[in-house]
Amino acid sequence: MDNRSGIGVFDSGVGGLTVAAEIMDQLPKEKIIYFGDTARVPYGGKSKETVTRYTEQIIRFLLSKDVKALVVACNTMSALALDTVEKGLSIPIIGVIKPGAKTAVNTTRNGKIGVIATESTINSGLYPGYIKELDSTVEVVGKACPLLCPLVEEGMIEDPVTDEMVRRYLAVLKEKEIDTLILGCTHYPLLKNTIGRIIGDKVNLVNPAYETANGLKELLLSKGLLNDDNEVKEHEFYVSDSAKKFSAFASTILHKKNIRAKTVNIE
Amino acid sequence: MDNRSGIGVFDSGVGGLTVAAEIMDQLPKEKIIYFGDTARVPYGGKSKETVTRYTEQIIRFLLSKDVKALVVACNTMSALALDTVEKGLSIPIIGVIKPGAKTAVNTTRNGKIGVIATESTINSGLYPGYIKELDSTVEVVGKACPLLCPLVEEGMIEDPVTDEMVRRYLAVLKEKEIDTLILGCTHYPLLKNTIGRIIGDKVNLVNPAYETANGLKELLLSKGLLNDDNEVKEHEFYVSDSAKKFSAFASTILHKKNIRAKTVNIE
Repeated sequence: MDNRSGIGVFDSGVGGLTVAAEIMDQLPKEKIIYFGDTARVPYGGKSKETVTRYTEQIIRFLLSKDVKALVVACNTMSALALDTVEKGLSIPIIGVIKPGAKTAVNTTRNGKIGVIATESTINSGLYPGYIKELDSTVEVVGKACPLLCPLVEEGMIEDPVTDEMVRRYLAVLKEKEIDTLILGCTHYPLLKNTIGRIIGDKVNLVNPAYETANGLKELLLSKGLLNDDNEVKEHEFYVSDSAKKFSAFASTILHKKNIRAKTVNIE
Repeated sequence: MDNRSGIGVFDSGVGGLTVAAEIMDQLPKEKIIYFGDTARVPYGGKSKETVTRYTEQIIRFLLSKDVKALVVACNTMSALALDTVEKGLSIPIIGVIKPGAKTAVNTTRNGKIGVIATESTINSGLYPGYIKELDSTVEVVGKACPLLCPLVEEGMIEDPVTDEMVRRYLAVLKEKEIDTLILGCTHYPLLKNTIGRIIGDKVNLVNPAYETANGLKELLLSKGLLNDDNEVKEHEFYVSDSAKKFSAFASTILHKKNIRAKTVNIE
């Protein structure tokens, strides 16, 4: 392992590609080794025990691929498993929740922050926990949005049904007059336009993907692990279910042709 | 193993409970051993390879529990894995697709049958395959309805959003003037009222759960495996994720208090 080793980026499925895209953008010299657990997706309604076991299996796989750092590009895994899996790891690991919480605290003016995420992420209480650690006076309102992932995966990005569901989910956050909203699931940035239109333009949307890539940059810099050679990097993509379906989705999100993912069994 | 051994009934999650309920109704002397793969649910968009591997693991688990027959209470597993897993099994196994196909062929008058199911079930082509084997003159129109499972799991049984999605999915089937509609996913009978209202009362709805329980009865009878003792049976429930959430759902569907599922790891 050296500076030219890859960055392991992983998610329960395709959502983490929005984080991978930010990393490619901010750290174009780094090679990414992505894993999406498409055979067992979604994680958003599952228990801490199950999500932790799956996360451990994914990390074991990525460690076999010569990586110098790990990015948990999934809010549910960051909320339920990161504290357990980071123990005993010999390389740095970063999740999406701390960076998102930090940005939200720096952004809010009225001290009212909303969080939308999966059921498991909301129930974990981790976003309010981190936010309160940073500023105990901030009020946090969380709302689980279990149907938004399936709607995004169906490609219903601009659709009256999606509008209606977003309106229902956001109603309680509008009532509380939040001025900052964390998009606490990697699928939600794809609904940014709809969410922004419905919550109104006085509310700042925080996309943890951007801040996570930024946090990764600082982390690599502080550890002397930034890659500075100018070779063109061949990113690698692995999934646990069909590679074909994933490759097509990844090509769209990453605006790259010919992404060829490989199927692996990590159980 | 003898006549008093249990019936292994399994699904990717909670949907198969609608089949278990039919079996309890039609075969009240049989003991059911249910497994729901709640850690890896849903299967409906996943590949044949993955679904087959998971089905093999579930069967291995159920065979350790002294069962005399197996019921694949899931359309996706019946469509993608049954032909592979039934090879080499020493006990009888029955899926939900053949019984549903048979009833539909016996029901249709105009020879136009619709099938709604998950993406993987529709793509497998198994419903049209079986139907054409029974009557090659019948026309079959399939439609994948990927959002109906998440909507049912959210409890949105009577909801304008569910109405709208059902309307969109059924539009092509109405156009084709089908007179028989197979509810090809174990979640859909819970939407029977909505589907019936939207497709209209001239279309017969076929719920494979009823026919599967009936088929199981015939199968046990023909093999001399029917249980005839009158002891009260304690059904058993196993899941791969949190038992608490499942137990609550099962109690509702089965109208039984105090269902206590156990979590097991079958990987």
